[in-house]
Amino acid sequence: MSTALSVNRRAADLVGAFVADAASLRIGVARGPLGEQLIDAGSSFPGSIAAGLRIAEICMGGVGHVALLPAGTTPNWPWTVAVRSSHPVIACLASQYAGWRLSHKAADGSFFALGSGPARALARREPLFEKLGYVDRAESGALVLESAAAPPPPVVEKIADDCGISPDSLTIIFAPTQSLAGATQIVARALEVALHKALELGFPLDRIVDGMAAAPLCPPHPDLATAMGRTNDAIIYGGQVHLFVSGDAAAAQSLAERLPSKGSRDYGRSFAELFASVNGDFYAIDPMLFSPARAIVTAIDAGATFRAGELNLGLLDASFS
Amino acid sequence: MSTALSVNRRAADLVGAFVADAASLRIGVARGPLGEQLIDAGSSFPGSIAAGLRIAEICMGGVGHVALLPAGTTPNWPWTVAVRSSHPVIACLASQYAGWRLSHKAADGSFFALGSGPARALARREPLFEKLGYVDRAESGALVLESAAAPPPPVVEKIADDCGISPDSLTIIFAPTQSLAGATQIVARALEVALHKALELGFPLDRIVDGMAAAPLCPPHPDLATAMGRTNDAIIYGGQVHLFVSGDAAAAQSLAERLPSKGSRDYGRSFAELFASVNGDFYAIDPMLFSPARAIVTAIDAGATFRAGELNLGLLDASFS
Amino acid sequence: MSTALSVNRRAADLVGAFVADAASLRIGVARGPLGEQLIDAGSSFPGSIAAGLRIAEICMGGVGHVALLPAGTTPNWPWTVAVRSSHPVIACLASQYAGWRLSHKAADGSFFALGSGPARALARREPLFEKLGYVDRAESGALVLESAAAPPPPVVEKIADDCGISPDSLTIIFAPTQSLAGATQIVARALEVALHKALELGFPLDRIVDGMAAAPLCPPHPDLATAMGRTNDAIIYGGQVHLFVSGDAAAAQSLAERLPSKGSRDYGRSFAELFASVNGDFYAIDPMLFSPARAIVTAIDAGATFRAGELNLGLLDASFS
Repeated sequence: MSTALSVNRRAADLVGAFVADAASLRIGVARGPLGEQLIDAGSSFPGSIAAGLRIAEICMGGVGHVALLPAGTTPNWPWTVAVRSSHPVIACLASQYAGWRLSHKAADGSFFALGSGPARALARREPLFEKLGYVDRAESGALVLESAAAPPPPVVEKIADDCGISPDSLTIIFAPTQSLAGATQIVARALEVALHKALELGFPLDRIVDGMAAAPLCPPHPDLATAMGRTNDAIIYGGQVHLFVSGDAAAAQSLAERLPSKGSRDYGRSFAELFASVNGDFYAIDPMLFSPARAIVTAIDAGATFRAGELNLGLLDASFS
Repeated sequence: MSTALSVNRRAADLVGAFVADAASLRIGVARGPLGEQLIDAGSSFPGSIAAGLRIAEICMGGVGHVALLPAGTTPNWPWTVAVRSSHPVIACLASQYAGWRLSHKAADGSFFALGSGPARALARREPLFEKLGYVDRAESGALVLESAAAPPPPVVEKIADDCGISPDSLTIIFAPTQSLAGATQIVARALEVALHKALELGFPLDRIVDGMAAAPLCPPHPDLATAMGRTNDAIIYGGQVHLFVSGDAAAAQSLAERLPSKGSRDYGRSFAELFASVNGDFYAIDPMLFSPARAIVTAIDAGATFRAGELNLGLLDASFS
Repeated sequence: MSTALSVNRRAADLVGAFVADAASLRIGVARGPLGEQLIDAGSSFPGSIAAGLRIAEICMGGVGHVALLPAGTTPNWPWTVAVRSSHPVIACLASQYAGWRLSHKAADGSFFALGSGPARALARREPLFEKLGYVDRAESGALVLESAAAPPPPVVEKIADDCGISPDSLTIIFAPTQSLAGATQIVARALEVALHKALELGFPLDRIVDGMAAAPLCPPHPDLATAMGRTNDAIIYGGQVHLFVSGDAAAAQSLAERLPSKGSRDYGRSFAELFASVNGDFYAIDPMLFSPARAIVTAIDAGATFRAGELNLGLLDASFS
């Protein structure tokens, strides 16, 4: 893949517009102790659904398009987050995937958050990057955290160091999962979740050339596990994806059949219920559960399209209500 | 609420783009006798649906998003106007609501129009503003009139005076209800109508933190009462809204149950028929009728969602046909 | 019609943004032997769906809006290309219609392609322009070719000459029908196809004042006839259009009734099958077949709306699968 496409440079433009619209988006913008730009999109500031949509486009490194629109596929939850990217692997896996574990232990409390967004492609701290072959080089970076708090200075320093940039060139956007912006930007991972499952299934990533996905916007919940459950269920039981892949039809068909969430042994229970059943051990949940309910895969070289899975409106209602 | 967000300053950018696109939008731009900028979007100039969408965003003071898209919820009228705002109270009530009555009697004829848009928040002539606590300060203002004619100089002077700006800093956009742009921008009030009903129901406005709404684009009609009826019926029988509110779940539930139009004693007849039955006395119609057919309210602090009402496709067809 | 609206000047802005986003859109930008700007959106460069959407807006001369969104009307093919224009005649017939036949015979092979886009309105080589009364004057031009190859220098020279511009002010965008961008931009002709059929039916073009259309994005196919068939079937069996016309209701009603594809003697077979049955002689197919499956026509002066036709999901599935 070409490195001419800089997800951080593209995100920098979006971050600039995001900051300029702070009052309209109900977000707070400040500088942290190391000069890092901190954007609070749902903690001390209320944030908004619009802020969540913007964060999602920043997370995709400016190579994704995110919209909120009324759709009839999930009638009780008519507003749908629609996502598309013509660089799905870079946008979703090299940038949007919340794969950078950031933690810090201190006498006065510990910090933990998952980092998402283009700064990941500067730091490349995750084994995933070995499979992606994408390197970004940019003078600034943007990272998004599902968190109610800004990271403490040692974490900021580590992020900046790993990215090879100075802290004052780093933007950190944070919003808890329970907030409107947090819920929105996580539901906007419908395409990313499909890409990640394709990776897990061993499908060659360089064959995924285009894609779209959609999932209903879930209502936030003040309890973290419930809020997290709803964002997951939005995709697992209400999401749909369409991938365009190169290569042979048989591989595309196999991908389509294995992609939907219903192939998982954990399919059929709400995420919050599952999460409680494994005592909050996220990694005890079958990773195959995390994918859209419905998948369409088009093999562009063969002109053939395959589909599997369907939406589960009952489980969606049970989770969101 | 913060006054850092200026609906007129945000609208000024949109007005600039609107004027720059005049040929494409089929609108006319001129200066009136007092130097006011007059934009004809459906009287001597044909205007367009696209112009109506732009006017709607200007009406919302640049803190709303308006789109026209195909949607399956009203199959016979597949194009839907979708609106959202993360500042619904400011966008809809302080700016978009057509609450400023402007009239003038003269020997050569009288003028009457309802003013909508951000200039209302400069002038604050309506009792409604006492409940909103929002004040805009800006050097320019934009007002939208449902009217086939530009206002006469005394009305322009009054508007500018009330806004505290000079007439040459005032933009007045006018389009009759019977025009494409007029119909479009009025249907785009689906969220505003819900906000106004929430106000009428006594729901605390500062608790309404985000919202979306949608209603089918109605076909215009050359007769004013019929045209007005269709724009109202689009929302009353074809509209849906989703509000996100803070505070307790009980209040949210009560709001959801009382919000839809079907709770009104006048529900079940087309607006034009009702209007005729009261001999054109708008204020004889139950104000509770003016709201979307279907409402969803999410209490974000409780994580609970409530819904009531449904679309009435039969009445929509009767009204639009 | 006014010539104040320059489709080539408006397209030039879109072309500039298209080129600036080349890496993100997976397109190639180069200069040809005569200095012409060549944009490869699906031949040696992969291109993308996003590129196809951009090309469609360039084809419409910057007076059309094109979006890709999930819609429930064709459930097996949930992503829909939605198009609208408030200058449908100029956008679709004077600009987007693929009506400029460009061919060249040479010892080392011949070139043939259909030209679409705003440069047509500079050159006005087609009889169609006599009926349109639209002339563009601009210093630059943009032409879109359904082709896997850039045109040879003699064709470039002819295009530039006919447009009255120098080759280095000419942009040629090419993408084969079999590519993602090609398929996308052709499906985005749903409104144009309706306009062209209205012309064929003798409906006065100056009465068509606004319009929207939508059709499902078809999966590309490596075989040209099959790929071409799918782009046509997307509209013929899956497309819908809504036109707003001035004048009397009877003419609008007649237009609505005659507009849908099902009035054609060739309705009911996939385009590829038909094309094979006439041995690839495109002009042996009934031109009345080329229109959306479903039409809605609103007579704005009468306030009356007429509709005819319906989607044919079975034929759509047969064609796309």
